[in-house]
Amino acid sequence: MTVKSGKLIGVGVGPGDPELMTLKAAKALREADVIAYFAKAGNPSHSRATIGHSLRAGIVELPLAYPVTTELPKCSAGYRDALESFYWRAADEIGKHLAAGRTVAVICEGDPLFYGSYMHVHARLAPRFPAEVIAGVSGMSGCWSAAGMPIAQGDDVFTVMPATLSEDELVRRLGDADAAVVMKVGQHLAKVRRALKRSGGLPRALYVERGTMAEEKLMPLVAKTDDQAPYFAVVLVPGWERRPEAKP
Amino acid sequence: MTVKSGKLIGVGVGPGDPELMTLKAAKALREADVIAYFAKAGNPSHSRATIGHSLRAGIVELPLAYPVTTELPKCSAGYRDALESFYWRAADEIGKHLAAGRTVAVICEGDPLFYGSYMHVHARLAPRFPAEVIAGVSGMSGCWSAAGMPIAQGDDVFTVMPATLSEDELVRRLGDADAAVVMKVGQHLAKVRRALKRSGGLPRALYVERGTMAEEKLMPLVAKTDDQAPYFAVVLVPGWERRPEAKP
Repeated sequence: MTVKSGKLIGVGVGPGDPELMTLKAAKALREADVIAYFAKAGNPSHSRATIGHSLRAGIVELPLAYPVTTELPKCSAGYRDALESFYWRAADEIGKHLAAGRTVAVICEGDPLFYGSYMHVHARLAPRFPAEVIAGVSGMSGCWSAAGMPIAQGDDVFTVMPATLSEDELVRRLGDADAAVVMKVGQHLAKVRRALKRSGGLPRALYVERGTMAEEKLMPLVAKTDDQAPYFAVVLVPGWERRPEAKP
Repeated sequence: MTVKSGKLIGVGVGPGDPELMTLKAAKALREADVIAYFAKAGNPSHSRATIGHSLRAGIVELPLAYPVTTELPKCSAGYRDALESFYWRAADEIGKHLAAGRTVAVICEGDPLFYGSYMHVHARLAPRFPAEVIAGVSGMSGCWSAAGMPIAQGDDVFTVMPATLSEDELVRRLGDADAAVVMKVGQHLAKVRRALKRSGGLPRALYVERGTMAEEKLMPLVAKTDDQAPYFAVVLVPGWERRPEAKP
């Protein structure tokens, strides 16, 4: 007897507020046989925390713990190899459930295919099993919405860049975009602030930590006086800042 | 007797598939006294179509019809003034309901503060009334998810640009980003194709019309042989295209 294979579903659960999950994501979580999620070893999973208690009783949970690779430099071949092996192992574990006919929902913070880890298992499994991706509200979208800050309009050019770029490269790219998001701020906050000062964007830049979550912090970057920021903090530089003109 | 003023809510309804609305958006629509939406005069509203029949009986609908300004060039002062007056009129109509204590949900395709018209009424009304923005899944996110195409990962620089840019400027910006979305393709498709050919992105570019909707069309841009595209079509250029390496 052949078993009909299960389905892989990448489920975007949004920026953190459980209410910002889509109807489709909520349905997929209710109907899945297995839910899988990435987590740092020893740390709780953000995406798992987002979906909280909305799972049905008896669902199988499959945490996928990143290998602890702090002893390896991030750009080294050793680090890359460790991650490659990890993604293969994760795909294998999920694949066993799929081969047995179970539907596996991989829950992802934000939007699965926008800077998410899900793409690594999707690329390995989608050629062999039915696969679907449920778009989610991105983390940065949660941030500008929480701030009530219009980020881009009309013919604005909008750029997302990592804070790991050099200061000169940040200055160049910030100056070349109408609107921008600097992500993964973490230890790079002082550099990001200097780059924004040089590019002219500092007065309108907004600093956001844990947007839409209970511990949300948001403030003008000029009002943040220290250089402490978690890895996932972002800086938003809106393109649209025009006050409405006087009423005609 | 003073009336407690109502609340303005910008509600992102997502990319088109009604199931890609968030739980929070669905709740806001159920509870609102009035729903308002932008629409081109004589055309149905996309956002109104997305929410379909999910409204409660007796809700007040407030369509906000853009002025017909086809007789004015888009970059002219006359066009800008006509739009400014229109946004003031829209804000006034919404403001009357708010002042009377009614909650008004302005429904927006995609994400309200990301290239959306909602920001124009938000900027006019948020200083005077309680206001909230409910983030939504963006149209482009719906497109790359429907295609199962990872768009950006890791330290990729991601840029959104309008197809209205000159060919040389498109080439420069496409070459300067790891991942990109060209939006508002419409009549500019031939130019966008030439720019992608020059920048090297053509082989991996994907053309998408009406992503996540019933009439969705998606195909490699190289497979699209004509130059016909609706205004809202997008071209996606993924940064991440690496096949998984052989299993270790």
